[in-house]
Amino acid sequence: MNNQDRAICGDAEAIYAEIKDAPIVSPHGHCDPAWFCNDAPFDDPSSLLIKPDHYVFRMLYSQGVDLADLGLGDAGAGRDPRAIFRLFASNWHLFLGTASRRWLDYSFKTVFGIEEELSAQTADRFYDRLEACLQSEAFRPRALFEKFNIEVLATTDGALDNLEHHAAIRASDWSGRIVPTFRPDSVINPAHVRFCEDVRVLGELTGEDTGSFDGYLRALRARRVFFKAAGATATDHDVSDLYSEWLGEAERDALFKQAAAGSLGEADAVRLHGHMLIEMAQMSVEDGLVMQLHAGSVRSTNRKLLEAYGPDMGADIPKSVDWVHGLGALLNRVGNSPDLTLILFTLDESTYSRELAPMVGHWPALRLGPPWWFHDSEAGIARYFDRVVESAGYWNLAGFNDDTRAFTSIPARHDLWRRGVAVHLGEQISRGRMTRADAGSIARLLACDLARDTYRLGAG
Amino acid sequence: MNNQDRAICGDAEAIYAEIKDAPIVSPHGHCDPAWFCNDAPFDDPSSLLIKPDHYVFRMLYSQGVDLADLGLGDAGAGRDPRAIFRLFASNWHLFLGTASRRWLDYSFKTVFGIEEELSAQTADRFYDRLEACLQSEAFRPRALFEKFNIEVLATTDGALDNLEHHAAIRASDWSGRIVPTFRPDSVINPAHVRFCEDVRVLGELTGEDTGSFDGYLRALRARRVFFKAAGATATDHDVSDLYSEWLGEAERDALFKQAAAGSLGEADAVRLHGHMLIEMAQMSVEDGLVMQLHAGSVRSTNRKLLEAYGPDMGADIPKSVDWVHGLGALLNRVGNSPDLTLILFTLDESTYSRELAPMVGHWPALRLGPPWWFHDSEAGIARYFDRVVESAGYWNLAGFNDDTRAFTSIPARHDLWRRGVAVHLGEQISRGRMTRADAGSIARLLACDLARDTYRLGAG
Amino acid sequence: MNNQDRAICGDAEAIYAEIKDAPIVSPHGHCDPAWFCNDAPFDDPSSLLIKPDHYVFRMLYSQGVDLADLGLGDAGAGRDPRAIFRLFASNWHLFLGTASRRWLDYSFKTVFGIEEELSAQTADRFYDRLEACLQSEAFRPRALFEKFNIEVLATTDGALDNLEHHAAIRASDWSGRIVPTFRPDSVINPAHVRFCEDVRVLGELTGEDTGSFDGYLRALRARRVFFKAAGATATDHDVSDLYSEWLGEAERDALFKQAAAGSLGEADAVRLHGHMLIEMAQMSVEDGLVMQLHAGSVRSTNRKLLEAYGPDMGADIPKSVDWVHGLGALLNRVGNSPDLTLILFTLDESTYSRELAPMVGHWPALRLGPPWWFHDSEAGIARYFDRVVESAGYWNLAGFNDDTRAFTSIPARHDLWRRGVAVHLGEQISRGRMTRADAGSIARLLACDLARDTYRLGAG
Repeated sequence: MNNQDRAICGDAEAIYAEIKDAPIVSPHGHCDPAWFCNDAPFDDPSSLLIKPDHYVFRMLYSQGVDLADLGLGDAGAGRDPRAIFRLFASNWHLFLGTASRRWLDYSFKTVFGIEEELSAQTADRFYDRLEACLQSEAFRPRALFEKFNIEVLATTDGALDNLEHHAAIRASDWSGRIVPTFRPDSVINPAHVRFCEDVRVLGELTGEDTGSFDGYLRALRARRVFFKAAGATATDHDVSDLYSEWLGEAERDALFKQAAAGSLGEADAVRLHGHMLIEMAQMSVEDGLVMQLHAGSVRSTNRKLLEAYGPDMGADIPKSVDWVHGLGALLNRVGNSPDLTLILFTLDESTYSRELAPMVGHWPALRLGPPWWFHDSEAGIARYFDRVVESAGYWNLAGFNDDTRAFTSIPARHDLWRRGVAVHLGEQISRGRMTRADAGSIARLLACDLARDTYRLGAG
Repeated sequence: MNNQDRAICGDAEAIYAEIKDAPIVSPHGHCDPAWFCNDAPFDDPSSLLIKPDHYVFRMLYSQGVDLADLGLGDAGAGRDPRAIFRLFASNWHLFLGTASRRWLDYSFKTVFGIEEELSAQTADRFYDRLEACLQSEAFRPRALFEKFNIEVLATTDGALDNLEHHAAIRASDWSGRIVPTFRPDSVINPAHVRFCEDVRVLGELTGEDTGSFDGYLRALRARRVFFKAAGATATDHDVSDLYSEWLGEAERDALFKQAAAGSLGEADAVRLHGHMLIEMAQMSVEDGLVMQLHAGSVRSTNRKLLEAYGPDMGADIPKSVDWVHGLGALLNRVGNSPDLTLILFTLDESTYSRELAPMVGHWPALRLGPPWWFHDSEAGIARYFDRVVESAGYWNLAGFNDDTRAFTSIPARHDLWRRGVAVHLGEQISRGRMTRADAGSIARLLACDLARDTYRLGAG
Repeated sequence: MNNQDRAICGDAEAIYAEIKDAPIVSPHGHCDPAWFCNDAPFDDPSSLLIKPDHYVFRMLYSQGVDLADLGLGDAGAGRDPRAIFRLFASNWHLFLGTASRRWLDYSFKTVFGIEEELSAQTADRFYDRLEACLQSEAFRPRALFEKFNIEVLATTDGALDNLEHHAAIRASDWSGRIVPTFRPDSVINPAHVRFCEDVRVLGELTGEDTGSFDGYLRALRARRVFFKAAGATATDHDVSDLYSEWLGEAERDALFKQAAAGSLGEADAVRLHGHMLIEMAQMSVEDGLVMQLHAGSVRSTNRKLLEAYGPDMGADIPKSVDWVHGLGALLNRVGNSPDLTLILFTLDESTYSRELAPMVGHWPALRLGPPWWFHDSEAGIARYFDRVVESAGYWNLAGFNDDTRAFTSIPARHDLWRRGVAVHLGEQISRGRMTRADAGSIARLLACDLARDTYRLGAG
């Protein structure tokens, strides 16, 4: 029995026992489908555990570690992965108390079977063990997928992606279920750096005239059909300034023309993006793709890092979000529709009880996503239940998703969630708010059933 | 001993025992005075428990239940109340973990004496029992009022209300104390849909010329005198965009003229409303009516429901509020007055520790209202104490009010508050922050004394 | 064993025992250096405990006590200190549940050795005892400093201060370490009421031409050199509207010229202040002074009190702060510098998890200050750890500081923090998040090591 197991007792322990081995439904995340297509061994421990994990390298960077020394960017190309791992290990104390340490600890112990504690002294033994694992058959992507008991895993894919790896997986004799997710940011957000070029390519790919708004919509529909045929059940949208507005036809056409020409101003770009979100929601009503909205991350706030290393370097910072006004126009067009499922993700925890629980407890189309990013942690999960359930209940939530690009952290993240669910429900019982039987039902719901149902992933 | 009782132990249990049977002081709510005037039996279980409870029907609506199927709106007229109750019962699981379920459970058990659990299977037995109760003498409004041990109950009444039911109750031989509350939104907020008409009627009712600002103020004063004579001790104000500004005489007159003519723009309407809130506060200094400000609810965000069913259909959603700047002008005119009591209610929990506890811990006129609406729940009450007391202490709070139109939920709501008080104080003792004796005093204060004193309801 | 000690048990108790007697590192506060220079007895109990403590008199004022009756302002001059103390004692119940009561209780018991409870009845005995203490040698400032086991105490000093008391202390044979802090608000914030005059004096003091921007910068550098020579390791900045912008040379010069002439508009004053904050940060990169930013207090919101009593009368109220955009320009110029330490203090707890933990977990220059002002309380400390650690870890925090002008409350405040640390870490252990050994290390770090290191106070 490890420390974490000792921390759960009574009803919570029994509930955890009932759900800990439930299959993993992972309806949103950022794994690379190529892993499962090629089933090649992962390169090395640092490429698997450190370089793709912005939680890890942002913490190291905050304490003075150079990103290049972690093998990132052009400057970091060719760094010795063992040296990278040693550097990480010698800073392992920085992660005390963080969610990252929980996830990594779980992976080390449960996935890789390492019992000792990581430190500068044990770094080499860790590295040897991890390396040996990764070279074995049992740690190939498909084998891990099966070991992790993953029922279905959704990736996130640009609107122009050819989904070749998804196609190859489906064509293969492997039965693992990997589905794509339609992420059209670059073709619906005029502020996106690749908007003009991607809208042009969108036209080529679909044979539609994306010079006209109608052709552009037809092209988007065509891509959604393509994604759906490849197994997609959802779309995903990143929104920094949450805003929606239904534009009149003439204005919409005019703004789109300017956007396609790269001459749209910043304020109008927000408006056109706000219109396109409604178009996307309306297409979801038509085609049944579940819509996800991840709002409120200010991207790449560190310009020096953006220039040297590109986006996603740990400098995305949350900001306040006004859900009521931001989504007003969208909801008033489609929020009453029984055919739409729109899942909201926030990084602004003050909105949990103020706006989001009340909103998902009213609008038929809405579901509240699980704690996201910085809040997908033990205390973050506790705050989420504390602030959300009394207004929203459980059935207006979307279950859990791990949202990770760190494949081996997937079981760790679902385990942390399930422990959080068990602790929450144990407390519900001990406070007299719920019977043990009801708590057991809710536990199964939150562990995987709700995610499967919300994302319409029931049928393979 | 039920589950909820098992959840309280030690000092908390003893404290709860001391306050659980204290009389109910209900200084703010939305019960219908006609009930107590006529003392007729309540219509049927669904009309009592479901149709007037926006907490209940908003949850059902969020999960796809048609409001008409719950008997709401023109479309729902004539629905069989038993069918409505069955529909509700079959969705009872949706309320797991919500405050609504706590209140209803308490009502079923304590008020109606039903021991079994509600479900689709037990719906008819529940309905039969509820219906039988409602037809009995013991469940007439006055009898319940006495059974609930209500010392005083305040209703909320439009400024133009003739208060005939209040007058009849006072003239009757029944000793129950029901007092009105002066709610002048429709005659002081130029953005109110009935503003022009209601200001005109206000003139007629009072014999004042509400075409001039001075006459308008005289008319408002007259109505306050009328309400006070009918037992009112308080006013109540709903404010969406919190704002106050003291206008110069010329501008004030000009804006009022435009408002009365229905030609005032949106921004100026906010300004005039902000001026009128200060006028109201000044009148409170004069006449001693306690002023309540409920701020930050965006009303009727679902236009389709508003058109089909009217307001108060569960689509009011909280938003951020800036108390410091919003109340600045008002407080700088009257906030230092020892004669004013101004109670603030927020739906934005982030303001508890940031602005409200510091403000009520400074301004002599201010008191902080209890958790409101979505936050009037077990965890909401815990958050309130956690974030407020250390800066504001207890004497700057306003005690509890139930703010309900669901009459039979009143004891349930006060009981939930009293349990929350007991749990909070038990924790204060166990953390060494307070002696048992002090905790006992605070418990009685919070259970009813503070509400009685704050609302000046001491003298019958 | 007192009540507070009973409240800590298990691992938390052991951890508390390990750190409770650690030396006090007080890197930020508002004590008067003259106390330690002159080492004269404190005047009387009320002048020590009530009149300088805005927490105390704001609460009394909120409940109707006249500030003049507490000896404040011209109107309060000459009030009998015993009468003031009696007035305070008779309102002692108002402080139940507040941090102020915790601090005062601790001071009464631990510093002054009084065992009974304060009340109207015991007020005179308390006063006698306090007065007798203050007249004894053991309660002289230096003796208390030593009794409190203060390793170093930083004061906060205006940029024009001659630091004579600091010089005299250093020249004396007393070994207590008192260091100044450079607080240049009045010479870098054009909205400051003394800006024009103080910039002129700044020129005189330094022999620089503060009529030109370059001379102005040289003058500021000279004062930083002067403060550093007197032992300063840090600067401190109060910012109401958080904003930073790097101005072009021409605009900067033009705005400065207007500011020096007293003709700068409000919006431009914010911009010039925002530029000067970056200049200050850049000077910190050069000279190594740690920079502190206290943001989000709206000062003197009660105009009547401001006029009658001046600033700092308990009417400063927190407001929302947008750290991401507010600091964007500053951080993009200097936030990646390993030579800068910039400590952020917030009064908006919603920013803990939303912006601040993510920001300090990314930018090398940033550290998060401890709970400030209204949040420096038992529950406030718990919320801080709950919301901050999982994203930021411990090493991106700044340790504790007491930020007080109430000298005898210093041990009380550090004790409350250390209890909070112990409770937090005890919970980390019991939840399986940390080993006992790691918790012990973190405890020592948070108790004093981190403050000493962050503020570069290691070398005497």
